[in-house]
Amino acid sequence: MSFREDGHAAVDWAADYLESVGERRVLAGVEPGELRAMLPAAAPDEPEAFAAVLRDLDDVLMPAVTHWQSPRFFAYFPGTGSEPGILAELLAATLNQVGFLWRTSPALQELEEVTLAWLAQLLGLPAGWHGHIDDTASTATMSALAAARTAAPGRRVVVCSEHAHSSVAKAARLLELDVRTVPGDERHALRADLLDLTDACAVVATIGTTSSTAIDPVPAIAEACEAAGVWLHVDAAYAGSAAVCPELRSLFAGWERADSVVVNPHKWLFVPMDCSTLWTRRPDDFRAAFSLVPEYLRAGDEVPSLSEFAFPLGRRFRALKLWAVLRCHGRSGLQERIREAIRLAALFEEWVGAEPGWEVVAPRPFSLVCFRREGSDEENEAIMRRVNESGQAFLSHTKLDGRLVLRLAVGSARTTEADVRVAWDALRAAVG
Amino acid sequence: MSFREDGHAAVDWAADYLESVGERRVLAGVEPGELRAMLPAAAPDEPEAFAAVLRDLDDVLMPAVTHWQSPRFFAYFPGTGSEPGILAELLAATLNQVGFLWRTSPALQELEEVTLAWLAQLLGLPAGWHGHIDDTASTATMSALAAARTAAPGRRVVVCSEHAHSSVAKAARLLELDVRTVPGDERHALRADLLDLTDACAVVATIGTTSSTAIDPVPAIAEACEAAGVWLHVDAAYAGSAAVCPELRSLFAGWERADSVVVNPHKWLFVPMDCSTLWTRRPDDFRAAFSLVPEYLRAGDEVPSLSEFAFPLGRRFRALKLWAVLRCHGRSGLQERIREAIRLAALFEEWVGAEPGWEVVAPRPFSLVCFRREGSDEENEAIMRRVNESGQAFLSHTKLDGRLVLRLAVGSARTTEADVRVAWDALRAAVG
Repeated sequence: MSFREDGHAAVDWAADYLESVGERRVLAGVEPGELRAMLPAAAPDEPEAFAAVLRDLDDVLMPAVTHWQSPRFFAYFPGTGSEPGILAELLAATLNQVGFLWRTSPALQELEEVTLAWLAQLLGLPAGWHGHIDDTASTATMSALAAARTAAPGRRVVVCSEHAHSSVAKAARLLELDVRTVPGDERHALRADLLDLTDACAVVATIGTTSSTAIDPVPAIAEACEAAGVWLHVDAAYAGSAAVCPELRSLFAGWERADSVVVNPHKWLFVPMDCSTLWTRRPDDFRAAFSLVPEYLRAGDEVPSLSEFAFPLGRRFRALKLWAVLRCHGRSGLQERIREAIRLAALFEEWVGAEPGWEVVAPRPFSLVCFRREGSDEENEAIMRRVNESGQAFLSHTKLDGRLVLRLAVGSARTTEADVRVAWDALRAAVG
Repeated sequence: MSFREDGHAAVDWAADYLESVGERRVLAGVEPGELRAMLPAAAPDEPEAFAAVLRDLDDVLMPAVTHWQSPRFFAYFPGTGSEPGILAELLAATLNQVGFLWRTSPALQELEEVTLAWLAQLLGLPAGWHGHIDDTASTATMSALAAARTAAPGRRVVVCSEHAHSSVAKAARLLELDVRTVPGDERHALRADLLDLTDACAVVATIGTTSSTAIDPVPAIAEACEAAGVWLHVDAAYAGSAAVCPELRSLFAGWERADSVVVNPHKWLFVPMDCSTLWTRRPDDFRAAFSLVPEYLRAGDEVPSLSEFAFPLGRRFRALKLWAVLRCHGRSGLQERIREAIRLAALFEEWVGAEPGWEVVAPRPFSLVCFRREGSDEENEAIMRRVNESGQAFLSHTKLDGRLVLRLAVGSARTTEADVRVAWDALRAAVG
């Protein structure tokens, strides 16, 4: 078989998968070790046909796949690997660019710069910020904090809300910075009146926290950071994509005053994993933290590589999928899908609010609904477990104000009203 | 157009590209900013067809691509995105798995564990080590050093050869560790007699340095590390893949005594960028450095996620391409390609050695030849520049013993003797 024939078979597999993913159970139904036990103990000695890989994908791997592409994936924050992004990944692997100097791939570097400028414009971020792509927001936030640490020697505290993502604490541990958490208010937003910037090198403000999509008061935080000369990093990993809709822009007030902002197009902008975008008004501080050019990488290029602004030396051609997605959806297509996700979440919120025995427990600025059934944490967890194990839908949980809370996040471009209805029916049927 | 039709067009584009990449100039022929100037200033408002992306790939992007897939890419360390790996990336993007808990993708986690065990076995590494995939060796080495730092509080020195990769210094800067460099001997290998482990938390030994593929004396270093209780990290990012050949195994003596080892299958094992594999005998130290599980990620899974052993929270389904490559090449296919690269490098080395006015300037244990033309550094750099600008071949340089040295690295699975001959003819023709 030739690459061309294998490739057509792979595309057909992919097309069939995407057409039928809604018929599959969402959460993988296997036990730990079940897949491992089905795989050989060693790689083969002799080459196998690619058809054998495709066959085992169906026969061996698929039962162990949790279907992130399912329209009824409502856990964590759903992502959609949309079609142009998927095909762009095929092309990126074909070109196999490795960016660590401008010359090793001018296309990679300049397309990354241009698509980041396009996306900044779509989101209403200031023009002229320096942008690059990281694998995940963990890395983006870590690099922003590393830049902030370099820019403010001696200041070793990172300040964030008690509801900030765990990646802030993980980055702080790596960078040996102390974390000072600020309590949240009744809406789970950082209480700016309790902000203490003593010895702080950075504040991480979140627009759309992971637990409940709470929105920290960024304007007030920016004010305090500016007064104290402290780096402000805005984590809008999930919610940032919603800023493509002008009517939602007010929720992002103040992020234009940040020193750095991270948004994950692989979360809610229909780009396949992985694509986390970071912009900064202070690229020189990133370069001070990360640039290191040994002799074997001295190229005489006139422009610095994006590698000088980030931690890993080599970078993959991720910009290609971002480019394909922005073009093939267009501003209007992105807006339409974001609005539909929010409409569906609002609908679900209504259903929950109208049903005796259920309550919505947090504000819903975007497409995540936090809710619970009357009764104990254990009862709520059992409801979630039953729904997830049924395979009909996949939800996750968090804790808010000491109580276990269920989360239904709409984000897949494939989710319809009927899918949200299935989840709601499954939840009600799961009451013990 | 449907996804299926667009996909078939993309596969045909990829097949045509791979069939003809040898006819293209290797190094991109554009000036900085040339591509940027050809791209629109903003993303489109309305959706475009995927065919428009494919068209612009040809018309706009291709002139700015440096062809890493070219058989005459001899710079840095070449990589090959081989066919099964390319198609596996299409499938990975289709499935769009996001691994941060076992349950979010049992397939991702268990296939990663199994393929890492397969690869360890192929390379002759000890059975039972814990393996995972990072994006690049920069990240893998940084995480090993973070684990070492956690395991040895108060010891803040990383020891490595003066020829160690710049990623060691970059990681040390991030982790605020001091680097103590040990001089190299006449073969550019770390002088074990000068090893000073005072206050050291880790030693990074290299098998196959970037400049000249020198091999540090790992057995002696391991001895010293064991005696002093210091973490030994072996960087075999490039050369490690060659350990699939039993006849080369002696070059890796001692790496089985390391605490952690990194090998980049995206360099010399025909896996598309990015796939850097790390094994450790001390997974608990990685977990101590990196595990952090907040409430919204508490899943009740019986097994820890690979995310607890690495820095980024989310991981992409990179194991799929490693699996496809190991199966479709097989042990014998991998060995054959590694041996052929070494044979071609040895041939080039012979040609250079036999030609008056040229000399080989470093031992060649693998497939990199370090050489130079008589005359000044400037003359050598000019020769390289002329070859690279001609587009016929792409080489890079380094400095060894204070002199500028040219590097010809054979690594692409597509390189033939005729391609190496073209490079050699071009080099001789480029003498000023």
